[in-house]
Amino acid sequence: MILLQDRYNILSKIKTPDDLKGLSSRQLKTLAAEVREELVNIVSENGGHLSSNLGVVELTMALCRVLDLPDDKLIWDVGHQSYVYKLFTGRRGDMHALRSMNGAGGFSSPDESEYDFCISGHSSTSLSVGLGAVMANELTGGKSRVCCVIGDGALTGGLAMEALDNIGHLKRPMLIVLNDNEMSITKNVGSISTLLSRARSGKKYMKAKNTVETALNKIPYIGEKLSGAARFVKEHIKYAVTAGTLFESMGITYLGPVDGHKLAETEDLLRRALSMDEPVVVHVLTKKGKGYGPAEAAPQKYHGVGPFDKAHGLPASKASYSSVFGDELCRIAKKNPKLAAITPSMTLGSGLSGFAKKYKDRFFDVGIAEGHAVTFTAGLAAGGVVPVVSVYSSFLQRAYDNIIHDLAIAGLHAVIAVDRAGLIPGDGATHQGIFDVAFLSAVPNVAILAPSSYDELRKMLRFAIEDYNGTIAVRFPRGGESRAIDNGDYVFGKAATLRSGTDITIAAYGSMVARALNCAELLAEKGISAEVIDMRTIKPFDTAAIITSGNKTGRLVFMEEVVCCGSIGEQLLAHLVSREGNFKFKHIALPDRFVPHATMAELEDYYGFTTEKLVEKLEELL
Amino acid sequence: MILLQDRYNILSKIKTPDDLKGLSSRQLKTLAAEVREELVNIVSENGGHLSSNLGVVELTMALCRVLDLPDDKLIWDVGHQSYVYKLFTGRRGDMHALRSMNGAGGFSSPDESEYDFCISGHSSTSLSVGLGAVMANELTGGKSRVCCVIGDGALTGGLAMEALDNIGHLKRPMLIVLNDNEMSITKNVGSISTLLSRARSGKKYMKAKNTVETALNKIPYIGEKLSGAARFVKEHIKYAVTAGTLFESMGITYLGPVDGHKLAETEDLLRRALSMDEPVVVHVLTKKGKGYGPAEAAPQKYHGVGPFDKAHGLPASKASYSSVFGDELCRIAKKNPKLAAITPSMTLGSGLSGFAKKYKDRFFDVGIAEGHAVTFTAGLAAGGVVPVVSVYSSFLQRAYDNIIHDLAIAGLHAVIAVDRAGLIPGDGATHQGIFDVAFLSAVPNVAILAPSSYDELRKMLRFAIEDYNGTIAVRFPRGGESRAIDNGDYVFGKAATLRSGTDITIAAYGSMVARALNCAELLAEKGISAEVIDMRTIKPFDTAAIITSGNKTGRLVFMEEVVCCGSIGEQLLAHLVSREGNFKFKHIALPDRFVPHATMAELEDYYGFTTEKLVEKLEELL
Repeated sequence: MILLQDRYNILSKIKTPDDLKGLSSRQLKTLAAEVREELVNIVSENGGHLSSNLGVVELTMALCRVLDLPDDKLIWDVGHQSYVYKLFTGRRGDMHALRSMNGAGGFSSPDESEYDFCISGHSSTSLSVGLGAVMANELTGGKSRVCCVIGDGALTGGLAMEALDNIGHLKRPMLIVLNDNEMSITKNVGSISTLLSRARSGKKYMKAKNTVETALNKIPYIGEKLSGAARFVKEHIKYAVTAGTLFESMGITYLGPVDGHKLAETEDLLRRALSMDEPVVVHVLTKKGKGYGPAEAAPQKYHGVGPFDKAHGLPASKASYSSVFGDELCRIAKKNPKLAAITPSMTLGSGLSGFAKKYKDRFFDVGIAEGHAVTFTAGLAAGGVVPVVSVYSSFLQRAYDNIIHDLAIAGLHAVIAVDRAGLIPGDGATHQGIFDVAFLSAVPNVAILAPSSYDELRKMLRFAIEDYNGTIAVRFPRGGESRAIDNGDYVFGKAATLRSGTDITIAAYGSMVARALNCAELLAEKGISAEVIDMRTIKPFDTAAIITSGNKTGRLVFMEEVVCCGSIGEQLLAHLVSREGNFKFKHIALPDRFVPHATMAELEDYYGFTTEKLVEKLEELL
Repeated sequence: MILLQDRYNILSKIKTPDDLKGLSSRQLKTLAAEVREELVNIVSENGGHLSSNLGVVELTMALCRVLDLPDDKLIWDVGHQSYVYKLFTGRRGDMHALRSMNGAGGFSSPDESEYDFCISGHSSTSLSVGLGAVMANELTGGKSRVCCVIGDGALTGGLAMEALDNIGHLKRPMLIVLNDNEMSITKNVGSISTLLSRARSGKKYMKAKNTVETALNKIPYIGEKLSGAARFVKEHIKYAVTAGTLFESMGITYLGPVDGHKLAETEDLLRRALSMDEPVVVHVLTKKGKGYGPAEAAPQKYHGVGPFDKAHGLPASKASYSSVFGDELCRIAKKNPKLAAITPSMTLGSGLSGFAKKYKDRFFDVGIAEGHAVTFTAGLAAGGVVPVVSVYSSFLQRAYDNIIHDLAIAGLHAVIAVDRAGLIPGDGATHQGIFDVAFLSAVPNVAILAPSSYDELRKMLRFAIEDYNGTIAVRFPRGGESRAIDNGDYVFGKAATLRSGTDITIAAYGSMVARALNCAELLAEKGISAEVIDMRTIKPFDTAAIITSGNKTGRLVFMEEVVCCGSIGEQLLAHLVSREGNFKFKHIALPDRFVPHATMAELEDYYGFTTEKLVEKLEELL
């Protein structure tokens, strides 16, 4: 790892969080500036999460100063806001290869550092894990204090609410920092969000409260009744319309809000909370993107980014499966008034910004709430709307029961757009879209489609929305198509032969089809004639096409970019055995292991998914 | 369907909910009594959910009287509380074969009646579906009113909280009836529950509030400041410590509480709520088991029951996999102070009542919150505790991401007890434990064990808790073992040959092993020698044992009680092909369809799982 030049005087001396404790306020100010510059360096070089990290510079400094780490447990909800923490916990060198195979990961991981208590890549988990840590302390006689930092967006996740309910019940000391940056990933929605914004402008209420209290105190005697009543009012008036309402109603003490960029004030409040023998929420206001002009101006855009030019900011966004999805949805919506779109807080990432503007009556951002997104979709479908809910593959794991229980059993007509399906560069184990084929294909009544090109995605969406009548998933990769493919007309349940051949059949779906075509071209150079089949529909599966082609060429390789266990290749084998296809068979899929964080080139090399390595495997059958 | 004798004068005349509208208050009182008697008849004959239905007799009557059904949509959260509703909506005849193949189902289903808007078998879904119905109305120009009835227990589910957040944000008219019976399935836990109980005793607060308001009104002039402040206090004083706090903090108007057994009062409040142009929660207090002595005295026990003698109540409970699980956990806990047990509101059903009493410091009922149960478990594990979280198979679908993200990626040592795995009699599609093998086996780092006897369950638990170090699931059926089996010592990853044979191998796991032994015995009578292998460990899978035995007998049948897609049999085939096992193979599993509600005998017949039918299939290989 190459460390940067020494121009960061203070940062270069921080090896552990304790090193922040002796710094003067002047040095701390310098450190904050150095950290911000370093964050922009790191993310502009490697891509990653920028806005959220720029926003928590002072907060992270404050936490490192008031806690004793790693004895105390500091849990970042969604580890993508822990870059600053990584800089302070001995990982600065690794941050310069962030998200690549030999660098630091983009989220929290105990494998990476003893300062990370748990895996944290998905939202809204910290409070549950934190409460577990608190009770584990109690049971094992540990003395750690536990602090969770959770964003205002993550708070809408049902998991966080389940945890708050349990925290308020168990009443154990625990510090919850509510990092309120007035937006999660895109603009926040939901009533909790409204509540928080009221707290931000809560001063006039506080003033009113004080006036009443003072007045009541001054009234010398209006009868005993009022005196008791007055005490009651005073005691409970804190339940006025602030964020406190929610937390205190759940039995959790609420402090704040405090300006999270004012280090001393933030530290004071955190110390006060830590001194209390109960669960406490400290409401900290921060600004996403703080200190880097382009990110302050457009914090959503700088939420998660690829590498960029520091001076000029992000390049213009290119077409992607997500943008093609969003554009096609707009086209269909124009003619079909029954179409609605639903997203759990991923408007921008899912390519739905245009739809949200053009068809705002039919667009629902329900907040970070994947389960609700799908069950709400079920209600829309039962009510006669044709809903399309877009969820990233790895987040769809959070709505599994909702798919089974609320959509599939009734066979409701709803489209699940499974974005970010397949291997995901940079993000590591938590964000891979490699399980959806296994967990969705196990469910009766759920059709699954997988386009291998933009054009096929458009056709499949039209089919799923206009022609199908049931629960149907369309899964497509992150990023763009790797080559243009002419797939012909889409026919449900029928595979398409993209290239005829005589020596070997390569069958694939989704992103693997382009790789299959690349392989066929390389094999052709070697004088081998490969037939390429785009399965297109994963469920129901066109076994007949496979058997016909396999029997013709005598060799069949089935390739897919999902984990092997429960994959379509395994299910296919069951059909081949019962129907007695008479050919050599090979299955290429991902092994039964979690995926490391790495660039796409690294992942393709690691899994043997480059054209050269795939062809080597294909040649084993020849 | 045989209808009962005419002794139910009023009930016999109710063909649709509208028939309740013309009844006098005297007739309504008679009807309530008739309904209670009929409920006890139905459940004592067929088994089912008793306490919750006895509790909502008047509430259901009130709802049928104030709504226009089925134009308005009445959504029961967890359809098990909709028996009374079924009696009023033309399903009384079918209720006398409740939960069997030709009778009514135990939950809500649009397939059964136009009065059921959606599938409703799992908890906490109604608010999301209801909001979807409300928005669908708006988009399609429908005029339906939407009413959801949700229990206080279901409210702790994160899904319900996600929905409330969204309901408060969208602010559309919608009636939410909070059916508060002071317990969900077992005793309620959590801070929301505490809040509700405060509301129940909230009268003195209300009196205090009124006194202060009156006093403030009487003060003629204390300066303009106080006047404004006083208005503020008056406006917001309703946020006093009642259940209202939570709902109103989320932007939802709160009315109540009202005694849900007083029909007229309940109707009045419901009508008032329906007249308001916003989302309204009506807090209704009901008593579980109301009107049937044994159920009033022990409402938990009568939550879900088998058939019983009306006069004497429930028979003494028998041993079951759940009770064996709970007892063994107690034994291990005695020696191992690090062991903790976690349940999402299923203390009784999971056999954990004894553990909860004996080891209350190490026992955590987290409420109906499966996701939190698993992520909280992850926190305990990361903190050095050995947690065992018990979740029914079909509810574990709600914690899928928690298993992947919070347990498996880090490889934390935690035991997931998957209760109610396999076919479930009576409950129908929503409660089958037939997907867990597919969705769990797709996840790296998760070992899966399946005992075929009580004794094996005990051994596996000891192994999982004492000897293993990673995430491990132990899945076992509902009810009891069907025959005693001597499995020998448990060895992780190794199959056990329970019976040697020469003509055919039957390999199975869990509940299918007893069936395999039964088949072997019937085959022996026919002069056929069957070898029976208990796989025991589903993942990692002992393929070598299968291949050795298959090559010996020349025929292998793999039997499992899970859905075929993504099953172990399919995964096994992939191994057989690559290792070239040289024998005939047959896979017996459940088809790719949802399971109907039926008795176990009906299910075994339907799926060909009786010994006779299985043997027929086995003989196809001979």
